[in-house]
Amino acid sequence: MSHRTLIRGGLVVTAADELHADVLVEDGKVAALAAHGSAAAEAWTADRVLDATGKYVIPGGVDAHTHMELPFGGTSASDTFETGTRAAAWGGTTTIVDFAVQSVGRGLREGLDAWYAKADGNCAVDYAFHMILSDVNEATLKEMDLLVGEGITSFKLFMAYPGVFYSDDGQILRAMQRASGNGGLIMMHAENGIAIDVLVEQALARGETDPRHHGEVRKVLLEAEATHRAIQLARVAGSPLYVVHVSAEEAVAELAAARDKGLPVFGETCPQYLFLSTDNLAEPDFQGAKYVCSTPLRPKEHQAALWRGLRTNDLQVVSTDHCPFCFRGQKELGRGDFSKIPNGLPGVENRMDLLHQAVVDGHISRRRWIEIACATPARMFGLYPQKGTIAPGSDADIVLYDPHAEQVLSAETHHMNVDYSAYEGRRVTGRVESVLSRGELVIDRRQYTGRAGHGAFIHRSTCQYL
Amino acid sequence: MSHRTLIRGGLVVTAADELHADVLVEDGKVAALAAHGSAAAEAWTADRVLDATGKYVIPGGVDAHTHMELPFGGTSASDTFETGTRAAAWGGTTTIVDFAVQSVGRGLREGLDAWYAKADGNCAVDYAFHMILSDVNEATLKEMDLLVGEGITSFKLFMAYPGVFYSDDGQILRAMQRASGNGGLIMMHAENGIAIDVLVEQALARGETDPRHHGEVRKVLLEAEATHRAIQLARVAGSPLYVVHVSAEEAVAELAAARDKGLPVFGETCPQYLFLSTDNLAEPDFQGAKYVCSTPLRPKEHQAALWRGLRTNDLQVVSTDHCPFCFRGQKELGRGDFSKIPNGLPGVENRMDLLHQAVVDGHISRRRWIEIACATPARMFGLYPQKGTIAPGSDADIVLYDPHAEQVLSAETHHMNVDYSAYEGRRVTGRVESVLSRGELVIDRRQYTGRAGHGAFIHRSTCQYL
Amino acid sequence: MSHRTLIRGGLVVTAADELHADVLVEDGKVAALAAHGSAAAEAWTADRVLDATGKYVIPGGVDAHTHMELPFGGTSASDTFETGTRAAAWGGTTTIVDFAVQSVGRGLREGLDAWYAKADGNCAVDYAFHMILSDVNEATLKEMDLLVGEGITSFKLFMAYPGVFYSDDGQILRAMQRASGNGGLIMMHAENGIAIDVLVEQALARGETDPRHHGEVRKVLLEAEATHRAIQLARVAGSPLYVVHVSAEEAVAELAAARDKGLPVFGETCPQYLFLSTDNLAEPDFQGAKYVCSTPLRPKEHQAALWRGLRTNDLQVVSTDHCPFCFRGQKELGRGDFSKIPNGLPGVENRMDLLHQAVVDGHISRRRWIEIACATPARMFGLYPQKGTIAPGSDADIVLYDPHAEQVLSAETHHMNVDYSAYEGRRVTGRVESVLSRGELVIDRRQYTGRAGHGAFIHRSTCQYL
Amino acid sequence: MSHRTLIRGGLVVTAADELHADVLVEDGKVAALAAHGSAAAEAWTADRVLDATGKYVIPGGVDAHTHMELPFGGTSASDTFETGTRAAAWGGTTTIVDFAVQSVGRGLREGLDAWYAKADGNCAVDYAFHMILSDVNEATLKEMDLLVGEGITSFKLFMAYPGVFYSDDGQILRAMQRASGNGGLIMMHAENGIAIDVLVEQALARGETDPRHHGEVRKVLLEAEATHRAIQLARVAGSPLYVVHVSAEEAVAELAAARDKGLPVFGETCPQYLFLSTDNLAEPDFQGAKYVCSTPLRPKEHQAALWRGLRTNDLQVVSTDHCPFCFRGQKELGRGDFSKIPNGLPGVENRMDLLHQAVVDGHISRRRWIEIACATPARMFGLYPQKGTIAPGSDADIVLYDPHAEQVLSAETHHMNVDYSAYEGRRVTGRVESVLSRGELVIDRRQYTGRAGHGAFIHRSTCQYL
Repeated sequence: MSHRTLIRGGLVVTAADELHADVLVEDGKVAALAAHGSAAAEAWTADRVLDATGKYVIPGGVDAHTHMELPFGGTSASDTFETGTRAAAWGGTTTIVDFAVQSVGRGLREGLDAWYAKADGNCAVDYAFHMILSDVNEATLKEMDLLVGEGITSFKLFMAYPGVFYSDDGQILRAMQRASGNGGLIMMHAENGIAIDVLVEQALARGETDPRHHGEVRKVLLEAEATHRAIQLARVAGSPLYVVHVSAEEAVAELAAARDKGLPVFGETCPQYLFLSTDNLAEPDFQGAKYVCSTPLRPKEHQAALWRGLRTNDLQVVSTDHCPFCFRGQKELGRGDFSKIPNGLPGVENRMDLLHQAVVDGHISRRRWIEIACATPARMFGLYPQKGTIAPGSDADIVLYDPHAEQVLSAETHHMNVDYSAYEGRRVTGRVESVLSRGELVIDRRQYTGRAGHGAFIHRSTCQYL
Repeated sequence: MSHRTLIRGGLVVTAADELHADVLVEDGKVAALAAHGSAAAEAWTADRVLDATGKYVIPGGVDAHTHMELPFGGTSASDTFETGTRAAAWGGTTTIVDFAVQSVGRGLREGLDAWYAKADGNCAVDYAFHMILSDVNEATLKEMDLLVGEGITSFKLFMAYPGVFYSDDGQILRAMQRASGNGGLIMMHAENGIAIDVLVEQALARGETDPRHHGEVRKVLLEAEATHRAIQLARVAGSPLYVVHVSAEEAVAELAAARDKGLPVFGETCPQYLFLSTDNLAEPDFQGAKYVCSTPLRPKEHQAALWRGLRTNDLQVVSTDHCPFCFRGQKELGRGDFSKIPNGLPGVENRMDLLHQAVVDGHISRRRWIEIACATPARMFGLYPQKGTIAPGSDADIVLYDPHAEQVLSAETHHMNVDYSAYEGRRVTGRVESVLSRGELVIDRRQYTGRAGHGAFIHRSTCQYL
Repeated sequence: MSHRTLIRGGLVVTAADELHADVLVEDGKVAALAAHGSAAAEAWTADRVLDATGKYVIPGGVDAHTHMELPFGGTSASDTFETGTRAAAWGGTTTIVDFAVQSVGRGLREGLDAWYAKADGNCAVDYAFHMILSDVNEATLKEMDLLVGEGITSFKLFMAYPGVFYSDDGQILRAMQRASGNGGLIMMHAENGIAIDVLVEQALARGETDPRHHGEVRKVLLEAEATHRAIQLARVAGSPLYVVHVSAEEAVAELAAARDKGLPVFGETCPQYLFLSTDNLAEPDFQGAKYVCSTPLRPKEHQAALWRGLRTNDLQVVSTDHCPFCFRGQKELGRGDFSKIPNGLPGVENRMDLLHQAVVDGHISRRRWIEIACATPARMFGLYPQKGTIAPGSDADIVLYDPHAEQVLSAETHHMNVDYSAYEGRRVTGRVESVLSRGELVIDRRQYTGRAGHGAFIHRSTCQYL
Repeated sequence: MSHRTLIRGGLVVTAADELHADVLVEDGKVAALAAHGSAAAEAWTADRVLDATGKYVIPGGVDAHTHMELPFGGTSASDTFETGTRAAAWGGTTTIVDFAVQSVGRGLREGLDAWYAKADGNCAVDYAFHMILSDVNEATLKEMDLLVGEGITSFKLFMAYPGVFYSDDGQILRAMQRASGNGGLIMMHAENGIAIDVLVEQALARGETDPRHHGEVRKVLLEAEATHRAIQLARVAGSPLYVVHVSAEEAVAELAAARDKGLPVFGETCPQYLFLSTDNLAEPDFQGAKYVCSTPLRPKEHQAALWRGLRTNDLQVVSTDHCPFCFRGQKELGRGDFSKIPNGLPGVENRMDLLHQAVVDGHISRRRWIEIACATPARMFGLYPQKGTIAPGSDADIVLYDPHAEQVLSAETHHMNVDYSAYEGRRVTGRVESVLSRGELVIDRRQYTGRAGHGAFIHRSTCQYL
């Protein structure tokens, strides 16, 4: 007979509904929901009963943009799949979609296999992969079809980082055409890296070496330009497009213009763009380096446009772009030359809490919180309804969330393998209480009860958001 | 012990999800959903079991715009609350929101009480009311607050029909300000009626008396202008706005521009604008009169913009504006003078089927079908989650829908009390099989099993869509 | 033999050119221009030679918006045609287009004749008339044709001032249709006066009676709304449109959007919107009343949009809307009730100097100065090339302008019949030195040498700007 | 004593004015204009009197975009400076601005000197040069300053033609920054050539080799995209921008959006985009090759947007992009492979006539004809008022134009050295009668009276259009 867990008395919040319902889990899947106090609910028995009275019962978070162990700038992101997915669990995220990387001159297969190996047996929660295309050519275009067949259904291209990840507009067009045929979704890092590199060189030549200059040279207009260009190329190719880490008001405007035309163009932003700004980049004593990522943090005024975009659905997803580098020894590589600071911030553990704070602050509704953090990323990347919701048949990836608990974010207490927090000292309302991953408690009343290897690779279908 | 109905084996489609789930109804409400074949589902017993194998199990439709028995142009809409709500049930719609009318010089109370009396004891399915404000003044502004308190939480104003329903911009502004304070939602008929009446007079003076001239004088630009003006007045008042029966591409553009700014501005369109056009208005032998409504039907080219608006969520709701007049004796009042043709079309019975056809045709997804026809109108007008979804705790307003059955729409077979169909001879795929209203079968395998008086007045809360 | 005046050695600045040329005037008209030092120029002799060395030689200004002796709010504008046109001459303006007023219930003829009588024999410089339509009906529509025939080729309508000048949208549409047929140009005061009057009443009821509230209730959005509406009505009528006294960035945006569509829509702004702001309206001790006009002064931020509009030609004309009321006895009528302050500012004498200051400040070029202040108003209102330029065949309305002289604007020194200056104490660079009107010196080296009655009525042809 | 020519009795049409004036030329320059019949005019005597009664007297045309003898695709444009400038004279154009070309890996100096040599002693009318930058680097950036000093004040960059003229976005940004400092004007060929080359390769691989495929692969969206990108890069650099040969409605929209923001962004179109279309490219028997140029001809629907842009001043200049290749032996190089057809059309002789036809057809006014064909190109490229107008002090580059004569355009009768006409058989109203270049008759009543070597190099100042 099956193993049953019953979650009693909570408020089930999904992207669609807020239900006073009990949730019955059988064998790792959600079997049923029943109204509190209904005869049906009362009749249920279970091996384990979790009391969710006064709590939210929400789908586990889906973080569609992480970079565990990513080699970058001569070093590597400090979270392994083991430490990173454990931190994810602590933060209420039960699925990550990480990026396998093709190296220039090598095949997709080789890159993907390397990432399979990194993750296999190490993850605390479920994981899937996007593929970064660093070298679009006839051979790798063909490999794209194969990858879609094995559940790698999204491909990231870069308009920045010439010489590393950069694809030119012809390569982008070809990849989009291919994706248009095989159902893949093209994800785009939209910054005009060719122009930016000129500005970087000029800034350094003028002696502008501090972290804040990172934000100044990577101009808003050059993010908006690349966003516009990517959209036009997608129109030529007849393909959908997903723009990652949108940070600037002008880029949101390009997405909104595309959506007004009915184009299948989507946008993601990240907590750092919603909660941090160039003020952080300008922190003295090289502290600004902690906030160096690309696209860069923007002046505070841009935050309102991002929140508005999240409300109007011109932005559909909030991911973390989790890519942590320790301040000591890693971020410090860029002392005296901001262009040598490894790009990236930690965040996989903080996303669900920061977005709940946005609910408290009135930026978004509770349902929209779940939509942008769970349901839409799952739909966008072919994981729904297995992930991203609480419904009969879904994986029992469920978070019991205490909406009233207060906590202070800090490197002292977080579980990510990085020596600072981008949100150090920030007080937020709301906290993960317990987390189930496919029916197993991985966090039980603020204790980690999971294990490396529980997390499984998820074979994704194609984008369902169209 | 409670009465239980069990719906087995169907595909439950809501605005959010498509679930292979059984639905358990207890005492008129949805008690629980469980995955097909789960232990929980298998354990259920019930007084009545409905087999939904091969069927969709969808929420009953919410038609937020009907005019039963409306007095207009010296005659009255030909459907009573009894005939109209019975036809609604046949068409899979289990809630209507009709419009009570204030007469010029009279209070809201008097108008509302008249409508209560018309509906009371006569309805086959549940109903609620909006209030039409024909005379905004100090007294009626105060009455608005009282109406919100008794569940009449939306108020319709007209920028057209001078001398009848028309409010000037000052009255509109005052009503919006009041709504901004009491939580009411202002609904707007957005056409510049003052300018249109000049064009009507000029057309008639030129001898242009046929129905097609109705479409020509009520210009697209004058719908777009009024839509823009209503939005600006709502901005001044700080109030949300719901624009009814949007028919023109240029009006959709005004809504999209408002949404891009993050304004709480919403739009409704109707099946007649999606499926009919000025070609119908131009039908010979005065047959065009069957299609006279305001806003008028538009050239076919506008349909694409409306479908796009529905996909991009610049339009949120499809209602019918059901307001039938028989061709004989009613529409004929306008022979020789199109301005005397009673304005309105029948449609309450056809909406769910026509929108399912749009699913078949690829205009919208299944979930979006339910969203625009059930969930969003319920949210918009304070009925959710009691109406508009299938979830633990909701009213058991449920339709078993056969997605494969074919039917031909016709006045011969429809149940609306009107001597023609606006969609005569149109073949559509999909048909209502059975309908539950609060757990009672009102349509049972294509037999009407309901009764006048089953339908209850629903006290609405305020708009939840913001 | 003819009387000849020769202007030697100046820099002739027109809307098109900057020429080092001598100007030969014969019998009140410009006969010829010749390059300095050319054989042709050297051969010229004249009865009178004016030395323009170091000076600009510019066309006399054309102020297309003045209200001499206008009855308003129980009093009358304080400049008569005699004092006002004399001040105009002092300020380098040699043609005004004033507004004859139709009274409600009376014909255009009667109003026009009254204005002919006011001006006849009293003017120092040439003048023409627009006609204000206060009561559009069948009879007055017919009169419009007659007026076009006698050189009154533009007609002003008001969307503000209900009960006084206000026309409803039907009247506006009819007048536009008529103008579309007879070549007349519709000028529009674009503010939603119906909505504004609600806000006025509410503000006064709240005890907000100070002049600054005049600016607050006449909202930017309500100017932009009316601008948009007027444009749409003109599109329906197929007529051109000229929007007077544009003051708000959002209204400029509506004009720009219309221009992008290629519509014949034009806009005028005034020096007060370019140089003054709500800061002036907020001056203490009721001093703000000096700046009460409609459309109202706006927050400073709007100035940049107006300058940009002048540069991009989304705004084509700068007129004054000269309508002076003395502070004592006139503006004071509104103490305790801002709605009773007569609307209007003095400015006819200051326009050319203030716009030259804009040249000095880099907002516009020299040629653009002449274009917006002389050439375009002349073209727009059917006066070109008789007025607005210096070219063979033009009237010899010529200003010798000293671009280096400095002056301080002040009621102490100005020649307008009003007890304050809106620009009191403002230091500007540039000053009128001498002025010819049809070849006669009316200002001769800072002495007034003109006379009442020299100025003649100008029969205008229709708009040449299309 | 000076040599004098007197042009009597014509209608002088400039960008600003239409004057009934006689024009006196002294020593190659316009000395004076005087009203017909004025005493001043009557007093004039001259060595030569031209009777312009019934004619227009207009400034000689300024064609700011020609490619005489341009090496391209293994062949060279078929007009030499001698034949091309003679044809220009025949067509009423008295100044051309041709493009000197930098070769990849060589300096600007070398390229410029080669073009000086080609033109020197060969031209029938005056000429100047832009410089094409094919290789932006530190050395050539410095050379830009030197060229500005010697009157080469504009620099063309290509976003198309990778491997030949193409500059990447970093090179473009650097050149713009340099121009921003030295007053140079950047001219841009705005097409995304990287993406286009992918589409070219794919089309050829599909066997789509006909000339019409040239138009299909060079997509409208890829012109609009590049236009947008160039504008954004210019904003980053703080420089003005001039986009050459704009052909697509969507590109005009980008320019209009930039102008609405007040940016110094300008656009040129060409007669071929106004009068020809993809219908020509689709002519059978490889005849379409005659119309192969880049940007390509567009579907007819785009023409309306170009005319509108010319009227609203979103497009400021009409040049020819004259770059003729004979059908036999040159265009034929691309039989079986449209990508091998030399890009370019003849037109330098036809521009003034075709644009006059546009006056006749009501697209533009007479003054606008002169503005877009003479005055604005002169201002834009630092030639004004020496060229582009008829005013005291200007060069006496004057055309006597017969507005009533009819002619049929044909290779039979034209004077360009190319074996076909792009406008073969087109009947137009209006014809050049006589042409003066710096006071010398080069065309005298339809006889060529000029000579190679009369034409002089013109040292240009910087853009005066800002």
